[in-house]
Amino acid sequence: MRVLVLNCGSSSVKYQLVETTLAMIESNSDQAIAKGSVERIGTASAIHTYRPAGREKVSVVKEILEHRVAIAEILRILTDRETGVIEKAADIEAVGHRMVHGGEKFTQSVLVDREVVRQIEDCSELAPLHNPHNLRGYDAARRLLPDVPHAAVFDTAYHQSMPASAYLYGLPYVLYARHGIRRYGFHGTSHRFVGWRSKALLGRPREDTRLVTCHLGNGASVCAIAQGKSVDTSMGFTPLEGLLMGTRCGDLDPAVLFYIMHKEDLTEHQATTMLNKHSGLYGVSGLSNDMVELLAAEEKGHERAKLALDLFCYRVRKYVAAYAGAMGGVDAVIFTGGIGENAAPIRARALAGLEFMGIRVDPGKNAAAVGKEAEISPPDAPVKVLVIPTNEELIIARDTLRLVEGVL
Amino acid sequence: MRVLVLNCGSSSVKYQLVETTLAMIESNSDQAIAKGSVERIGTASAIHTYRPAGREKVSVVKEILEHRVAIAEILRILTDRETGVIEKAADIEAVGHRMVHGGEKFTQSVLVDREVVRQIEDCSELAPLHNPHNLRGYDAARRLLPDVPHAAVFDTAYHQSMPASAYLYGLPYVLYARHGIRRYGFHGTSHRFVGWRSKALLGRPREDTRLVTCHLGNGASVCAIAQGKSVDTSMGFTPLEGLLMGTRCGDLDPAVLFYIMHKEDLTEHQATTMLNKHSGLYGVSGLSNDMVELLAAEEKGHERAKLALDLFCYRVRKYVAAYAGAMGGVDAVIFTGGIGENAAPIRARALAGLEFMGIRVDPGKNAAAVGKEAEISPPDAPVKVLVIPTNEELIIARDTLRLVEGVL
Repeated sequence: MRVLVLNCGSSSVKYQLVETTLAMIESNSDQAIAKGSVERIGTASAIHTYRPAGREKVSVVKEILEHRVAIAEILRILTDRETGVIEKAADIEAVGHRMVHGGEKFTQSVLVDREVVRQIEDCSELAPLHNPHNLRGYDAARRLLPDVPHAAVFDTAYHQSMPASAYLYGLPYVLYARHGIRRYGFHGTSHRFVGWRSKALLGRPREDTRLVTCHLGNGASVCAIAQGKSVDTSMGFTPLEGLLMGTRCGDLDPAVLFYIMHKEDLTEHQATTMLNKHSGLYGVSGLSNDMVELLAAEEKGHERAKLALDLFCYRVRKYVAAYAGAMGGVDAVIFTGGIGENAAPIRARALAGLEFMGIRVDPGKNAAAVGKEAEISPPDAPVKVLVIPTNEELIIARDTLRLVEGVL
Repeated sequence: MRVLVLNCGSSSVKYQLVETTLAMIESNSDQAIAKGSVERIGTASAIHTYRPAGREKVSVVKEILEHRVAIAEILRILTDRETGVIEKAADIEAVGHRMVHGGEKFTQSVLVDREVVRQIEDCSELAPLHNPHNLRGYDAARRLLPDVPHAAVFDTAYHQSMPASAYLYGLPYVLYARHGIRRYGFHGTSHRFVGWRSKALLGRPREDTRLVTCHLGNGASVCAIAQGKSVDTSMGFTPLEGLLMGTRCGDLDPAVLFYIMHKEDLTEHQATTMLNKHSGLYGVSGLSNDMVELLAAEEKGHERAKLALDLFCYRVRKYVAAYAGAMGGVDAVIFTGGIGENAAPIRARALAGLEFMGIRVDPGKNAAAVGKEAEISPPDAPVKVLVIPTNEELIIARDTLRLVEGVL
């Protein structure tokens, strides 16, 4: 089945056209036949970058003032005589939409109808910077491709299996009951995917396997997975909580917020921007949020680059240990995301000191595991450590297929 | 040496007169010969409660408008012909003051002189609700007892040994450099005391012992102690962060704060009050912040009492595991504070699931360990679990003695 996967932001649409079948999922061999993005929507010089699998990248700059025009442009290039990969738009058999927030309503992916749209709108207050744009993309795509099924795949859905002791904050209960203030968690599709994929690599039944999955990218989160279900995760009500991230602060004494605002004379908006855009690896190092750059700087003796990396690794280590504690032990630790898949020194450093719980990293295997599936623990280690590349677009396509086939 | 220990709040003075010597410290046999408190200072009906060791409690209600008068009243009752325990005020050989915040300046207790007062004033901005009152008490006591040494013992000092990866937040570094925004930690005297005391109970050299100490009271914090030094702790810039507490929320996605303020139309002051006074065990249960009451309610089927206790225990468990991870393992877990010393079911529940790291609780020993020193792990467990009653006033007296004797 050819599934068009759309990830619509405020001024961008990222997309992939994925060829997938149930058999291809099983063998993990499904893949994108083209991918691209339209950026700067709403301007006279929007940039459409498109790459058909195995061929040259194409870039187009033109006026694109709204999402509908952007998606029409995507359909045009996908069916272009020269650069296209399909003959006509009708060759697209389904559309999968990334949705950020499904609140407590959506515990898995769904086919979208009017009622579902209404329910996603209800969740928009929880993700005002994301859901409305995701929905705008859905509206546009539905008009252009009215005759195929459209599915919504939520970042939050996978974590809906968390128990109350993990998802509730220590706030007056009424704030949960009245406003849904709780831990939701994000990166759900990614944690779910690497958890699913680990089954093939571990060769043990999922029912008695306890995983800690570390999605380390510019956004980063850890997830505890027991019996195939998320039982805790480090991102919370928003993606700000938890690990140190590229530019987000992660865990923070909430009382710090007002103190900073007074000291630096910041508005709420400025404070929020600071916590989300000027903090994390970037804020601590004062240098960059790029892991490669930070590792190089540390090598050259840049003290605050080292500090940022120490902080980053220390938090991962504490979360891995805490989640092992939460599950009564751990059978495998999995790294994914840009940093998790590629930064071998960070993986080793984050797990150093956890040998006492059976977690060990083989230096040679670890160094060799760059951007590909690999086991990086020594054969006799009680806990397996794996690297598994994630692919959120692929997961959206797969869920869309499964929904259409009625097997989700 | 007779040491008067003072803990001065905005409208209260708590005190103990402690008899201690270096030999008594070594055998842990020093103790208070009288204790009491003056509450509601600033009113016409301040209440002075006084209890000489082994005798009847005395209560006096009278007008006490300022701290100086309160301390004069304390000296009066301590030297009273009938109820007193000393002949004259001059029998007090030193005064020990509890100070909340010593910033990065104070890494241990100090004898107070003008320069020290100035430096404590410099830290007041970090603890505006505490340090000024602590200092007011010092001023008053210094005038009434001008000829004896006065010592300051800080809640924060013990945690100054934390490495930067534990004390730095993921914020722009300039906020640390410019305003000292970092994790300070509190309950330092308590964590330090039970860590010190554990040496006698564990019978192993402190240099290769890794402890996780759990101070569980109405305020609650966990501390990782390696080689006798604090290397991480759960309270942060303020005592709001970390565990679920009696009425404080503990760990929270910082982005929740603004969301609540908008939803509930709260001012900054109201939001701060909510996080500190209406949250925690009380806020989640909607019932009480009292552990005994909550356990009884849970027993009777009160669902939210159970939820609050589940949350409380789950967070302790995650912190114990995380700090074991931080230290590369753990040799003993120690419970102290009102809940830690008395609530056996909570201790068992908080550690359940950590058997995989060698932590086990013997049900019989645990049930019998109420308010007294005890080992509650089975003899063959790799990790010792101990209950050690804390006594912050005693620790303040001891530090004062050590400073006077020049052995701190």
